[in-house]
Parts: sequence; structure tokens; C-alpha cells
Amino acid sequence: MTSLKEQALACARASRQIAAMDTVAKRQLLRDMADALRLRSATILQANARDLEAAAAKGISGAMLDRLRLDPDRLASIAAAVRHVASLDDPVGQITRREVRPNGIEIERQRVPLGVVAMIYEARPNVTADAAALCLFAGNGVILRGGSEAIHSNTAIASALSEALQRHGLDPHALVLVTDLRRETMLELLQLVDIVDLAIPRGGEGLIRFVAEHARVPVIKHYKGVCHLYVETSADLNLALDLLIDGKTSRPGVCNALETLLVDSAIAAEFLPRALSALQARGVEVRGDEQARLLLPEIVEATDQDYAAEYLDLIIAVKVVHGVDAAVEHIRRYGSDHTEVIASQSSSAIERFIAGLRSAVVMVNASSRFSDGGELGLGAEIGISTTRLHAYGPMGAESLTVERYLVRGSGQVRHPVAG
Amino acid sequence: MTSLKEQALACARASRQIAAMDTVAKRQLLRDMADALRLRSATILQANARDLEAAAAKGISGAMLDRLRLDPDRLASIAAAVRHVASLDDPVGQITRREVRPNGIEIERQRVPLGVVAMIYEARPNVTADAAALCLFAGNGVILRGGSEAIHSNTAIASALSEALQRHGLDPHALVLVTDLRRETMLELLQLVDIVDLAIPRGGEGLIRFVAEHARVPVIKHYKGVCHLYVETSADLNLALDLLIDGKTSRPGVCNALETLLVDSAIAAEFLPRALSALQARGVEVRGDEQARLLLPEIVEATDQDYAAEYLDLIIAVKVVHGVDAAVEHIRRYGSDHTEVIASQSSSAIERFIAGLRSAVVMVNASSRFSDGGELGLGAEIGISTTRLHAYGPMGAESLTVERYLVRGSGQVRHPVAG
Repeated sequence: MTSLKEQALACARASRQIAAMDTVAKRQLLRDMADALRLRSATILQANARDLEAAAAKGISGAMLDRLRLDPDRLASIAAAVRHVASLDDPVGQITRREVRPNGIEIERQRVPLGVVAMIYEARPNVTADAAALCLFAGNGVILRGGSEAIHSNTAIASALSEALQRHGLDPHALVLVTDLRRETMLELLQLVDIVDLAIPRGGEGLIRFVAEHARVPVIKHYKGVCHLYVETSADLNLALDLLIDGKTSRPGVCNALETLLVDSAIAAEFLPRALSALQARGVEVRGDEQARLLLPEIVEATDQDYAAEYLDLIIAVKVVHGVDAAVEHIRRYGSDHTEVIASQSSSAIERFIAGLRSAVVMVNASSRFSDGGELGLGAEIGISTTRLHAYGPMGAESLTVERYLVRGSGQVRHPVAG
Repeated sequence: MTSLKEQALACARASRQIAAMDTVAKRQLLRDMADALRLRSATILQANARDLEAAAAKGISGAMLDRLRLDPDRLASIAAAVRHVASLDDPVGQITRREVRPNGIEIERQRVPLGVVAMIYEARPNVTADAAALCLFAGNGVILRGGSEAIHSNTAIASALSEALQRHGLDPHALVLVTDLRRETMLELLQLVDIVDLAIPRGGEGLIRFVAEHARVPVIKHYKGVCHLYVETSADLNLALDLLIDGKTSRPGVCNALETLLVDSAIAAEFLPRALSALQARGVEVRGDEQARLLLPEIVEATDQDYAAEYLDLIIAVKVVHGVDAAVEHIRRYGSDHTEVIASQSSSAIERFIAGLRSAVVMVNASSRFSDGGELGLGAEIGISTTRLHAYGPMGAESLTVERYLVRGSGQVRHPVAG
């Protein structure tokens, strides 16, 4: 087996072929990758069955087992997602700005691929195909380091995608699946300065912390979502209730689900009992601060840990706050810079909320569940960045490129020589 | 003395005031800062004299001493630069994109400040004022960690700038000058995750390596410029000679100066003797490969170290190459992703050169010395990024912001509850 460094160097070399492909060729490549996933579906599902058996033997539980599980429908969705990426606008080569300077030099900013992107993730095998498709479409080489639970599924998926690369006469090293899953090998990957241009960790807190602590290559974290809904005094309470129920219960296990409800004291007595009964009717456990418990004596007490928690479960923390500024301070203290929502009909309250926050996504009278690349018009996403650099919030194909400068002149120099 | 972490936390708190300032107020602040530099010029020049004495006592040499030296003219230029930043477009709050989705939610991307920027630099005291002005104008708090040689100058400059902050009723911690220059304190600064949003190291190779190796906060490196001029077969040789002389000799000590000349073999016999005599007439030492030395027997041999060197001096490495692809391969192997120049009249050669390179700036028939924020229309620059993320090439005020998502709806949810 070649070393990780050798594989990464091969990926960097192969990435130059991908960077040089035109849009039509990349679209055809991705469509052929989607076809390959369908053609190899029996093999992929068999591999997935091995992962599921191993997971069951390890006593892995319902939600995680479910994330790991593939079936013909889910595999068809994965192939459809790859095919969908092929339909996006190609960011590579786009000229984003053009200016002619007084001395006549013409300056353009042009989007170019990042180079080699390392994706580090956990149980979901769909990330293997999603990340590969987006990274390649944006002209990059991609190194995938998935979790051990999904190793057979990931290997089968990556192998199908590699076949498509080879059928296009491309160096298959443009897509490297790391199969040596030891921590020291991940460490090595994170320290391949000048080979890996960006590492994207996506998964649980432990994984993100490990990556952030050990990486020498640039990292964009996809960290947890401690998302808040603030129901301001002027809010339409029916609308607020819809946002609450959608945010908390439509898919509690994802990062854009609500974790904390902040209710303004002026409307707490009216809103909280309605909220509680709607939440309880959907099996949500409610935990509250002292003031919320005055109104809802049956709920348990929320601690500091509750306010910092990403439950990913049918639990919500509630707090009564006094005014927009108090809501903003709570979010800045306990939030994770992911997504916050205000329900309000007061434009001054809304603007104060927006101005006070530094989160990646601020929603006004809309559900936190829209904090997603597809919903926000990116077509597809590689994840949601909570790193306040390069890309903040949902990251699409464009976020996998960077702008360079192209300057065209006719012999201009900075200090012409006299005579 | 308060600890570095306490200072950084104070800077993060103060940065919220800066982020909330409108353009008019920020412009006035910067103009008052420029005035403060003038008002305090005697103090600053005295402080600089102490630095110069200490440097001379340490035996510090001409070029570095010159970078350290302030005089009334240079101080006036520094104040003028701060005043100039006040005239730039304010990036903060800019809406870069707007889209309404089919479900009626309106999505905007809005530029917001990064938060707290830590600038780590060496001898030049002007960086203290330049970096402070740009960071504050982009709505950020700024932590400045300059070199020990300039500590008195930096302290006097920062103190003048702080006075202006205070006169505006702002928390002066928005600008923190780190005066504890021990390495372990810099280490601590680089590991203030969730407090420092970006570290920008700007200086020599040792400094950059130290920062890159130890940082846990995001880093954008301002690394060396091993800039190339490739004279292609179709080049106008007079034009190429102008680019060569300007690139190498107009200011050899800066990162956008040329370090290597690549000459196509088809025109080497015609171009190299002219290049050599023009370079030698300006005191430039020429080192070449075997083929160059066949044509110019008097020059010394260039080694691999020469091709990787950022001389910052009147020395140039020369190599004869066979075709655009060979030039590209040389640059990809030895370059630093900074700035490359082609002299050519062939559009196919030019496009091949551009497509093959991954450097931040590619110049066509224009001097490498234009690789500078001012020359490229940014108004001012905090440096030139060689990190292929967020900002690549000259970084202006806009690069000190990030885009967030603002979403406005009227109660939209992702999964409406039936009934």
C-alpha cells in the first residue's frame, strides 16, 4: 500500500487534470458517476450490509444505525444528488470583477479551484458521493476520510466513482478514499501542508475538536448547531408557533434544528402555555429557566449545560428574556454561530437582532430548517461552515474555489526608466 | 498587567462597538487617528530613535535599519495612508447577492466583520498604523504583535491611535498592542480559539513557519514571493526587458520583486545577452543554469537553492526553458504561489500559462511590481495572501469581512403541519 503522503501527492497531481476540465466534460463525468452508482448498486448494498452487521454486533443504536443504512431508494437519492450537482453553474473560471486602472492594466478576479480538499466525516455514506461530486465539479482533487462504521459502504461507493474517472481517461487519484483509519494517519493527513489546501471536518464534537487541534492545513469547521428561536413581543404568535414546531420537530437530528426557545417576557404568559402543549403533543421534552417555570410549573429546570447543548433530539431549552438585547446576549453566550431565528413584526426589533448577532445565518420569520445549501439556493452543499472565514454558513460549489488576480497589460512598469 | 487572554477578550467585546459603527463615524475616527499621529509625531520619532539606537547597538544592518527608521516624511506618509483608508468604500453591511426562492423567502448575503484580527509582523512600524486602520475600518477589533526591534515606535503609534478611539467614546481595547513579546505569549495568542478569528503573519520565513505550525486559530499566511518572469518566444523583447528591469531593480527588497527569469530557448540567444548587460548595468548579479551559461559564460551557476530563493536583493536566477509547459512546471515546482509574469504576444501561449498556474496573481505583459493592493485597485492592503483560502493575493478591507446569510420570510416552514 502506498503511503498517505504518496496518495495525497498523487491526488494533487491528478487535481490538475480536474482543474483543466471544461464544464461540459465535468457534467458528463458526474452523470457517469451517478450511473456508476446505479450500476454498482448490488455491490454497494452488499458492502453496506456488512457495515450494518458490524455496527449491530458492536451494539450501535437506532439513530446511528439509521444514518448508516442504505437501501435502493436511498442509493437512488445519492445518485440523483450527484446528477444534480452536474446541473449547477460551474464556478471555475468565472470572472467576478473586472477593472481597468488609469495606467491601462486590466484587472480581473477569476475563480479557480482550491486544489486538494480533504473531507473528514463520520457515519453517513452519502457524504462520500456528495463531497466527491461537489469537490470534483469545483475542479478539485478530493481526499475522503470517512468513519470506520461505514468503511465497506464508502469503499464500494468510491470504487464506483473511480471507475467513472477512469472511463473518462482521468487519473483516478483525483478521488482518494483513505482506508487506513488510524488516528495517526488522520493526523498525518491534517499536517500535509502544501499538499492539502483545505480540510473540512463534518461530524460530532470530538471529531471537530481533534481536527481543529491538530491541523496544520487550513480548516473550515462544520460545527454543531445550537440554533435559537427568539419570539419577540410583536410576533405573530401563530407564526412563531409554526416556526417552533417546524424547527424543533420536523427533523430533530440535524444541525439546523432548534435547540433553544427564547421568549420575550411581555408575551411569555400568552405564548409559553401554547408552545408547551404543542411541543408536548409532539413528544418534545421542555426544560426552562425560573421564569418559564413560573408559567409552566410542570417542566424541569434548564441548566447552563442545557443552553449550550445541541440535543439533536426531542428536547428543547426555554428561557424568558427581557428585550432583544437580552436575547442577543444569550445567543452570543451560548450559541454556536450557526443559525438564529427571530419571530417579530417590529422592523426595529428585527434590525437590532440582526445587527447584534454574528451567526452565519439569521432568519426573520422563517424556519431554522431553511439553513441548508439546497434551501438557500446553492443547489447542493458540502456542509455548513461555522468558521468565520472564506465561507460562513451553507457551503456550495463556489465555496470550493478561490479568486485569483489576472492582470493584462501592454508593457506597463511601475517605475519607468528615464530615457 | 492584564493577561493576554483578558486583553483579547476585551478586544472581542470592544470589537462589537466597532462593528456597529456606521461609515461616517468610522471615517471620522480614522481621520482623527491620522491627526493623532501628526500631533504625536515628536513622541513617535523619539520612540523610534530609541528603537534605532537599540538596533544599532545590536549591530542590525542597513536594510533592516532602514525598514525600522521613521522620519517626519515617513510619519506623514503613514498618517496619509490612514486618512486614505477613511476614503475607501465601506465593505461592512454590503449586500453582495439577493435572491427570492420559490417559497417566497428572501435570501441576502451580507458582509460582516470577521471579529478580531491578530496581525503578527516584524520590523516595519508603519504596519502598526496600516493594519489598525484597515482592520478597524472593516469593523474588526485588532491585536497587533509587532517585532521587538520596533517596540517603542509601535507603542507610541498605538498610543496615539488609542487616544483617537477614546476621543470617540470607544473602548480603546478595540486596538490592542501586545507588548509582552515572549514567544510563549505569541503562542498563547495563536491558540485563542473562539476569541481571535484570524491571524495574519507577515514577515520572514521563520515567523510565518512558527505561526503556521502553532496556530489553532485560522491563519492567512503572507509568505514569500518567489516571482517569475517568463519570456515566451513571441515576446516583444524590449517590453520583456522593461518588465525584467522594473521587476528586479525598482525595489528589490519587496515580495513582488522578480527573483527568477525564465527564457524560452528559441529566443535565449537574442534576449539573454541584452538582459545580462541591462541587469549588470544596474548592479544585479546573474546566476544561470547550464544553457544560460553557454550563452553567458561569465555568470555563475544557479543551484536548486537559487531557484527557490527569495533574494530580496540585486541577484536573479536565470533558466532557459523549452516551451510554456516547461515554464509552468518550473514555477509550480519552485514558486511560492505569489506572482508570475509572462511576456508574450501569443494568446494561446498566454492562456496556457494562465491555465497552468495556481499562483495568486498572474500578469500578462505587465510588471510583477503591480502585485499590490493599491496598484490592483483595493485602495490599501493589509498584505498579500499566499494562502489559497478566503483571500488569495493582495488583501484589502473587503478581505477583512465575511459574508453571512440573512433570510426574511413570512412564516415559511419546511414541513407544514397538515390541518
